[in-house]
Amino acid sequence: MSLVTASLSTIQQDLQARIDQKLDLFIDQQTQVADDLISAMKYSVLGGGKRIRPMLLSIIGNMLGADRDDLDVASMSIECIHAYSLIHDDLPAMDNDALRRGKPTSHIQFGEATAILAGDALQTLAFEIILNHPLSEQNSVKRIDMAKVIAKASGVNGMCAGQSIDLIATGNEISLTQLTQLHQLKTGALLSACVSLGAILATDICVEHIQLLHEYAGSIGLAFQVRDDILDVVSDSETLGKPQGSDTALNKNTFVSHLGLQGSQSYLQKLHNEALQSLASLPYNTQELKTFTNFLVSRKY
Amino acid sequence: MSLVTASLSTIQQDLQARIDQKLDLFIDQQTQVADDLISAMKYSVLGGGKRIRPMLLSIIGNMLGADRDDLDVASMSIECIHAYSLIHDDLPAMDNDALRRGKPTSHIQFGEATAILAGDALQTLAFEIILNHPLSEQNSVKRIDMAKVIAKASGVNGMCAGQSIDLIATGNEISLTQLTQLHQLKTGALLSACVSLGAILATDICVEHIQLLHEYAGSIGLAFQVRDDILDVVSDSETLGKPQGSDTALNKNTFVSHLGLQGSQSYLQKLHNEALQSLASLPYNTQELKTFTNFLVSRKY
Repeated sequence: MSLVTASLSTIQQDLQARIDQKLDLFIDQQTQVADDLISAMKYSVLGGGKRIRPMLLSIIGNMLGADRDDLDVASMSIECIHAYSLIHDDLPAMDNDALRRGKPTSHIQFGEATAILAGDALQTLAFEIILNHPLSEQNSVKRIDMAKVIAKASGVNGMCAGQSIDLIATGNEISLTQLTQLHQLKTGALLSACVSLGAILATDICVEHIQLLHEYAGSIGLAFQVRDDILDVVSDSETLGKPQGSDTALNKNTFVSHLGLQGSQSYLQKLHNEALQSLASLPYNTQELKTFTNFLVSRKY
Repeated sequence: MSLVTASLSTIQQDLQARIDQKLDLFIDQQTQVADDLISAMKYSVLGGGKRIRPMLLSIIGNMLGADRDDLDVASMSIECIHAYSLIHDDLPAMDNDALRRGKPTSHIQFGEATAILAGDALQTLAFEIILNHPLSEQNSVKRIDMAKVIAKASGVNGMCAGQSIDLIATGNEISLTQLTQLHQLKTGALLSACVSLGAILATDICVEHIQLLHEYAGSIGLAFQVRDDILDVVSDSETLGKPQGSDTALNKNTFVSHLGLQGSQSYLQKLHNEALQSLASLPYNTQELKTFTNFLVSRKY
């Protein structure tokens, strides 16, 4: 393991522990009347998960001089949205997945009704966190902007629209352009939200640099998905923590089904270069973002 | 039809038309990439529905001198939360209802996956409306308080907790205290939110009067549910727009199963009196609220 990778791995472990602890505490501060629901919420949002979005948000925010605790609040909210989307995507009516992060999915563990409800309540929790969690004084006024970013990225303008296109596309061939749009909405919107949240919490950043960071997020968002599609073919279930080959089993449109394995690897390389190019024009120390980008495109799970 | 009932009926019809129109417009202003999802969202949130919550919010807000358009924004948001909860409650894994407001439920009409997603996206839309919809100038700073009220009433502190207790209670006997708590969370929280939203948008109101309005909302929230349980026994499917007797069929705990039909009617009368008593101590013209209360406890569907 190289020094830079070791440093990224430390960031990841620190974040995982810190976000878990803060989320656990925040959930415990909520009502205690619905124990089953709270158990199901914690099961999906705590423990496990690569915390890709908090890593991106934390590295960008750190680069822009944002307060660490404020960034954590944004990360907690984003992770609630992400966890809710995974619970609902895994449901029998959607992808019908039984395994996620090496554990039974929520509906297998708690039953379908509680899983639906846990997803619902995690979405609400994302907004409760961003609206109520203490923020450093100068950032309290930025709450509403942060909440707007999260709502826009999650709803019918973002993640839900992507999932809707995914539903229509499953079992039906769609064009590469449509596949790209699907993932720009389903995965990309939440990654771009990390850029917006980091920029809101930054001490100072100009519009042009925000734009470059969004271009960067666009490239790594697609790269993330292309890598996912490649891993679904070349990896194994144990490493992935979810069933390998599930895209093929569901007859899903993927970058591999469109471009082939080699074509997908070339496309991944192209996106990787584009991401690094966006970073190159920024007047910040982008070393950690570069390392993060390398990690994303070469990740094993 | 008496004069006061006619006036309430006019308020209801005006509200239904106005809220429908504004919601339709707001949804159309969102992305147009997910037509199926948008159709499913509109199907459940537009057309039909008694608009009980907007009526309560509108009457309280009007009594307190709030801006009508601002109240409409709050109503639109509340109705998105309400519609999402109905879609998810009707799912096969939950109550498995095929009929709602005289129409096929969302999952019957659009399939289960799209129904789940439409519920998800409507929850997000509730926050998008409250965070983004134009408000009269002096109320822009109140957005965050309004968003907090909606989040608290919907999530693990409110509606979702109530639904979770409902899941556990279905098929298992619970105490009258637990049944009361269930409905205070599942239905009451969103009705109380209407009081909070009205108070936020009011030109001026003291803490004691807000408290009286919350006590009023608590009474009518339970009264609403007791009436619902009575109607499930004494009405018919055509009038209700949903299957009569479904509580019994699902072996649900209801006020009728606990108190009997006559006992429930007495309890309803007691709650009605309590509601009117809370209003009597308020220094406002509460005539419309009284009429609304009478309508709620004697409604036929």
